[in-house]
Amino acid sequence: MSLEAHLQQAVLLKKVVDAIKDLCKDVNFDCSEKGLQVQSMDSSHVALVSLLLRESAFSEFKCERPTSLGMNVDSLSKILKMCSPSDTLKIRWQGGADTVSFQCEGGEDRIADFDLKLMQIESEHMEIPEQHYKVVARLPSSEFQRICRDLREFGETMQVKASKEGITFSVQGDMGAGNVLLKPREADKLEDKVSLTVHEPVTATFALRYLVNFSKAAPLCGSVELGLGPDAPLLVKYDLENSDNGHMQFYLAPKIDE
Amino acid sequence: MSLEAHLQQAVLLKKVVDAIKDLCKDVNFDCSEKGLQVQSMDSSHVALVSLLLRESAFSEFKCERPTSLGMNVDSLSKILKMCSPSDTLKIRWQGGADTVSFQCEGGEDRIADFDLKLMQIESEHMEIPEQHYKVVARLPSSEFQRICRDLREFGETMQVKASKEGITFSVQGDMGAGNVLLKPREADKLEDKVSLTVHEPVTATFALRYLVNFSKAAPLCGSVELGLGPDAPLLVKYDLENSDNGHMQFYLAPKIDE
Amino acid sequence: MSLEAHLQQAVLLKKVVDAIKDLCKDVNFDCSEKGLQVQSMDSSHVALVSLLLRESAFSEFKCERPTSLGMNVDSLSKILKMCSPSDTLKIRWQGGADTVSFQCEGGEDRIADFDLKLMQIESEHMEIPEQHYKVVARLPSSEFQRICRDLREFGETMQVKASKEGITFSVQGDMGAGNVLLKPREADKLEDKVSLTVHEPVTATFALRYLVNFSKAAPLCGSVELGLGPDAPLLVKYDLENSDNGHMQFYLAPKIDE
Repeated sequence: MSLEAHLQQAVLLKKVVDAIKDLCKDVNFDCSEKGLQVQSMDSSHVALVSLLLRESAFSEFKCERPTSLGMNVDSLSKILKMCSPSDTLKIRWQGGADTVSFQCEGGEDRIADFDLKLMQIESEHMEIPEQHYKVVARLPSSEFQRICRDLREFGETMQVKASKEGITFSVQGDMGAGNVLLKPREADKLEDKVSLTVHEPVTATFALRYLVNFSKAAPLCGSVELGLGPDAPLLVKYDLENSDNGHMQFYLAPKIDE
Repeated sequence: MSLEAHLQQAVLLKKVVDAIKDLCKDVNFDCSEKGLQVQSMDSSHVALVSLLLRESAFSEFKCERPTSLGMNVDSLSKILKMCSPSDTLKIRWQGGADTVSFQCEGGEDRIADFDLKLMQIESEHMEIPEQHYKVVARLPSSEFQRICRDLREFGETMQVKASKEGITFSVQGDMGAGNVLLKPREADKLEDKVSLTVHEPVTATFALRYLVNFSKAAPLCGSVELGLGPDAPLLVKYDLENSDNGHMQFYLAPKIDE
Repeated sequence: MSLEAHLQQAVLLKKVVDAIKDLCKDVNFDCSEKGLQVQSMDSSHVALVSLLLRESAFSEFKCERPTSLGMNVDSLSKILKMCSPSDTLKIRWQGGADTVSFQCEGGEDRIADFDLKLMQIESEHMEIPEQHYKVVARLPSSEFQRICRDLREFGETMQVKASKEGITFSVQGDMGAGNVLLKPREADKLEDKVSLTVHEPVTATFALRYLVNFSKAAPLCGSVELGLGPDAPLLVKYDLENSDNGHMQFYLAPKIDE
C-alpha cells in the first residue's frame, strides 16, 4: 500500500474540494509523508490555488514514497457527495495502480466506496516565495464572501484599500460607484473579529470574478486572512479548523492601471 | 444638501423596491417636504404603480425643494441587497448632482455606500381620481399571493366576484375551470382576517400576470386591500407597517368582455 | 352521482400524483367499489406504474358502477397545489359528465374547487402476475432515493446484488466504479430499518433513470420494499401510511447483459 489516509470527517475534504471546484478542472494531489498538497493554476491560468492537508489532519496517515495522483475535481466532488457529514473517509492507493479508492463509512452498516480513475496531469511545480505583506487583514469569511458577491453586481474590478483605520472594498461601474468599509472590530468569537496589521497602507486592484470564487471557501473557516502588498499578489487564506492541520490559499495578481 | 432622508430600517425600502422590480424598469422618485413618491405605469403601460413614503416613515427627513430623481429599479435593488435587515439607510442628494448617495450602516464598524447615477425619465404626472369602490375587501396578503399564483397555472384571466357572502376568484382554461372562495373570517391578528365592505355586489375580470406581480408586495404588509367597482380599475393596496407612513398601491383596468 | 370520494387529507393524493408526475403524462383512474386504481406504462413504455387507493383510504367512498376517468397528471398536480397540507379533498363525478370535480376545503371559510376536463385514454389493461421474489429487501425510502441520485452521477445502469449479508448497489462509468453496501440493521422506527428476506442471492441490473424517478415517491412512506428475482422485473413498492389503504408500485424490467 503506497498511500493510506483516514479522515475522521469526510466533510473536511468535501469542503476543500468544493472550494476549488469552480477554479480548477484537474489537479495533482502531491502525497508525501508530510501530508497531501495541491498546487494548481486555475483553468484560466490567472490565479493560484494552494492546499496543504498536513498528516496531522488525518487520524491515520501512511505514505511510503512521494507520489502525485492526478484527479478530476468534479468527479471527486461527486464521490464526496456520497458521504454524509459525519462519515469517516479512507483514501487508499496501491503503488502503481491506475485508480485511487475512496471509502466512506457511516456506522458499520453503510459503506460507500468509489475507485476513481487517475489522470496524468502535467505538473508545473511552482515555488511560492515567502511574502512579507505590508498589510495583513483578518475578517469574517462570510462577510468577505458577501462583499465580493455584492460588489460583483456593479463591476468587474475591486479596489482594496487598507490602512490602520480600516479596509475599504470599492467598485466602479455603469450604475455608479460603491464602497464597503470595515473598521477593526473586537469580538468574543475569532470569526467575528476584524483585525488589521499595517506596516504601510496599501491600495491595489483585483478582478472580482476570482475573488468571488475564492470566497466560496468560507465553509472551511469562520475567518479569512488577506495579505496585501504594493504590486504583490493578493493572498486569500483559510485555515483548516485547526490551523496546524493545514490551509487553503489563493493567490491573485493585481491589476495594473495603465 | 437638497435631500437628506434617513430610514431606521433599510429593509423597508428594500421591500418596496422588490415589489415594483418586476413591473417598472426606471422610475422617478418625486421628493418633496411631504416625503417620497413614485407614480409610474408598468413597462407594458397597462398597470399603474403608486408608492407613497411619507416623511413620518423616516427618522430624519429634509427636502429643500421638490425634485424628481430618476433611478433604475434594478440598480436600486442591487444596492439595497448590500444592506442587512437591521441596517439603517441614509439617502442624500446634493442639489444639481448627477448621483444620489445611499449609505447603509450596520453598527459603527461596517459602512456600505453607493453613489447611483441619476437618469432623466420623462414623467407623465397622473392624477388618480379618488374612487368610491362598491366593494372593499381585506384579506391576508399571503393568501392573495397564493391564489394569484395557483390560478395563474390554469389561465390568463381571473374573474373576481364579491358580495356580502364572500369573494370568489375564478379562472377558466384548457384544463377546466376553478374557483377559490373566501368567506368573511374573524381572527385575532389583523393579517389573518377576511373582511368585506359591500355597497353593491361586483363582478370584474383582470389579467392574471399583473395580479401575480402586484401580489409580490406581500412582504410589505400582512394584509392587502382590494377595491372593486363596476368597470372601475381594481385597486390593490398595501399599507406600510404603520399606515400613517404611507402605502404601495397598484391599479389595473378590468378586461371588458366582448 | 356516480363517484363520490372524500379524503381526510388532500396531501395523500398530492404525494401520489407527484410520485408519478415524471413518469406518466395521462392516466386512467379506474374507479370501482373497491377504490381507485391506476395502471400505466411510463411515457417511454419501459416501466409500469401501479397505484391502489383502497376505499378504506377515504373517509367516504361511493362508486355506483366501475368506470375509468382519464386525467392529465400535470393538470392534476396543479389542482392539488391549491390544497394546503391539512385540507380535506372531495372528488365528485356525475355519471356521463365530461369533467371531474375536485373540492378542497381548509376550514369553512376557504373552498377551492376545480372542474377538470376528462380525457379518453386508451387503456391497455395489464395483468401483473403475482411474483415470488427470491429477495425482498426493505430499506429507508430516503436512503434508497439518495443512493439512486448519487450513483446516477456516475453511470446509466445500476447493478443490485442482494444476499443475506447485505444489499449492494453498484455503478460503472467513465470516472470509475462505485458501490454502496447496506447491511441488515435493526432500529426502533420501521423506517430506519434495513431488512432482507433472501431465498436465493440475486444479482440484476437496471436503468438508473427510472429508479431515480421511482425513488421520488419517498414522501409516501418512510420505507420502501424492493422485490428481486433472477430475470424478473424489479418491484419498488411504497405502502400508503397505513398499508391497508393501498400502495404505489413500480415495476422495471432488468437489463440483460449481452
